[in-house]
Amino acid sequence: MITVTGGVPAPDLAEIGISVDAVLADFLEGKSRSAGSPHLLELIDILRGFLFAGGKRIRPLMCICGWRAAGGQGTPEPVLRAAASLELFHAFALIHDDVMDSSAARRGHPTVHRTLADRHQHRGIAADAERFGTNAAILLGDLALTWADEMFHTADFTPDQTRATRPVLDAMRTEVMFGQYLDLVATGRPTGDVDHALAVSRFKTAKYTVERPLHVGAALAGAGPAVMDACTAYALPLGEAFQLRDDLLGVFGNPAATGKSVVDDLREGKCTVLMALAVRAATPAQLRLLREVVGRPDIDERQADAVRTVLEATGARQEVERMIAHRLRTAVAALDAAPFPDTVAAVLRRLARIVSERTS
Amino acid sequence: MITVTGGVPAPDLAEIGISVDAVLADFLEGKSRSAGSPHLLELIDILRGFLFAGGKRIRPLMCICGWRAAGGQGTPEPVLRAAASLELFHAFALIHDDVMDSSAARRGHPTVHRTLADRHQHRGIAADAERFGTNAAILLGDLALTWADEMFHTADFTPDQTRATRPVLDAMRTEVMFGQYLDLVATGRPTGDVDHALAVSRFKTAKYTVERPLHVGAALAGAGPAVMDACTAYALPLGEAFQLRDDLLGVFGNPAATGKSVVDDLREGKCTVLMALAVRAATPAQLRLLREVVGRPDIDERQADAVRTVLEATGARQEVERMIAHRLRTAVAALDAAPFPDTVAAVLRRLARIVSERTS
Repeated sequence: MITVTGGVPAPDLAEIGISVDAVLADFLEGKSRSAGSPHLLELIDILRGFLFAGGKRIRPLMCICGWRAAGGQGTPEPVLRAAASLELFHAFALIHDDVMDSSAARRGHPTVHRTLADRHQHRGIAADAERFGTNAAILLGDLALTWADEMFHTADFTPDQTRATRPVLDAMRTEVMFGQYLDLVATGRPTGDVDHALAVSRFKTAKYTVERPLHVGAALAGAGPAVMDACTAYALPLGEAFQLRDDLLGVFGNPAATGKSVVDDLREGKCTVLMALAVRAATPAQLRLLREVVGRPDIDERQADAVRTVLEATGARQEVERMIAHRLRTAVAALDAAPFPDTVAAVLRRLARIVSERTS
Repeated sequence: MITVTGGVPAPDLAEIGISVDAVLADFLEGKSRSAGSPHLLELIDILRGFLFAGGKRIRPLMCICGWRAAGGQGTPEPVLRAAASLELFHAFALIHDDVMDSSAARRGHPTVHRTLADRHQHRGIAADAERFGTNAAILLGDLALTWADEMFHTADFTPDQTRATRPVLDAMRTEVMFGQYLDLVATGRPTGDVDHALAVSRFKTAKYTVERPLHVGAALAGAGPAVMDACTAYALPLGEAFQLRDDLLGVFGNPAATGKSVVDDLREGKCTVLMALAVRAATPAQLRLLREVVGRPDIDERQADAVRTVLEATGARQEVERMIAHRLRTAVAALDAAPFPDTVAAVLRRLARIVSERTS
């Protein structure tokens, strides 16, 4: 006998991912049809390649979960379109992020600016291919941002749905850009400011990756304050756990699994909670090493290993694992009190584990 | 006796400019109030400083003219807000453009990425200030793009107005980004491809600067195809004249008046109509000089002067002046046949002269 609690079937994560991808593919196909120039077709192909080279589709999944958490039925086309637009927005954020970090790899492939630089090189045009790649990636990111917005507002929402979701989307976009800027201001040299690092992660990740996507979905279903607050109670600790895991993977991850470098964060001098904890607990010799090496553009593997040793020896790595576990428990406990259908809470519990225990 | 033809008072350009600026100032004031961090306040101040350091407000003026051309009365708040959002969008486009061109000056002031680099230097943070400036300007451009959209969709439009204008705005945004990309692909070495240069200018300037802003305003007033087509008939030749004038000012302009360098275009190797005409008419010796010098990152004043001499000697400069005059005549003639109120046509005639005969 199959028991469906409260009559609400559980969201099928794999199926939602496939549907979201179909919406994205359709949208880009329409753009290709109207491009009218081989150069523009190639540009759109590069965006398509990036979108479908991987990605966990966390934000679309959260959006659909928010919809169901607030009592939405099934997965209507406009809700799917809203969910997919969050993934296209995320493509924009990653493309610009990789330009800003000069990252060479993402999702196991060359980053967008690297791909564009390589193509330009092959065209044999005299101008600086690196420069072209960076500039073209800035433009392609701008297009992805614009198209994400277009995809969202061309969804067939009711006026009430439009009224309820636009402010959430506006808040999300400003928050993630503000968070990125605060991150940038602090980047370059290690400090012991754990609170600043946590505050940045709240804006640029916790709200952006979990809370706002849930809110968008819930708002589409006409959620009141109780459901919105329950989303937040789950989302913020989980989102922080997500960023803390990201920080660990950025230094200790397996590049074959994460698809990106484990030196970039150290080279950039990212002010992560991990680094801040290490700075706080470091001996004078360890602190000297961190200050000397972290943020160096020419950091090598041996130096990166020395930093990793300090992150272990100071107990920072273990402390971050503890923080993740604590936040995961808080997020899951929030679900127990949430006014969500049981099947939806169960899926959110599963997503919480996937997000905070991932290796990629 | 005062004769007001057709009872429609002429749009007062100066007054519209002031009202647009007030909407922009109010919007940014709201963003500052909710920023909650001195770093974010500073970032918003830099955007404000850029917006109010100059700018001709051509796109907002065209938008209001489109509204009046289609029979719109007065300048209602939502129309003003749509017009102002075009200026905020333009701020985004210029900020990213200056990053891509590594331009140091705009509107007689340091560009946004230069300002951000200088501020970071003063904070005394070890990391590379140039790099910070570039990255922060990418983010601030992203914010301006997002906020332009937010300003537009929070205008109090009727459902019909929203339905009519969103596709125009979507088209405009994609067109200008496509145009910028096609420009980028061709940049680096001088070619004689006049048609390509004209096609790029149609997308990145003629449609973006004149046609689409007129269409946005006209669509808000519920314009039918006759008014929309009349807008296009005026806008495309005028927009091309605008870009051709820009190309001349970019090489022969007076920096004290234009507020920007007259070497940047040559250093970048921009494929302008001006340059393409010169390449076509050049003697072998002149062509050698153009190929050797145009697109050099280290081009100096003496070399730039040598290029200017070739642009004159080949007749390219005079030919571009002729093209501008021809397009200005075509645009003005289109107004004679346009179904616009006479007072509006008169203002558009004035704007056509301002745009194509400007020295800054």
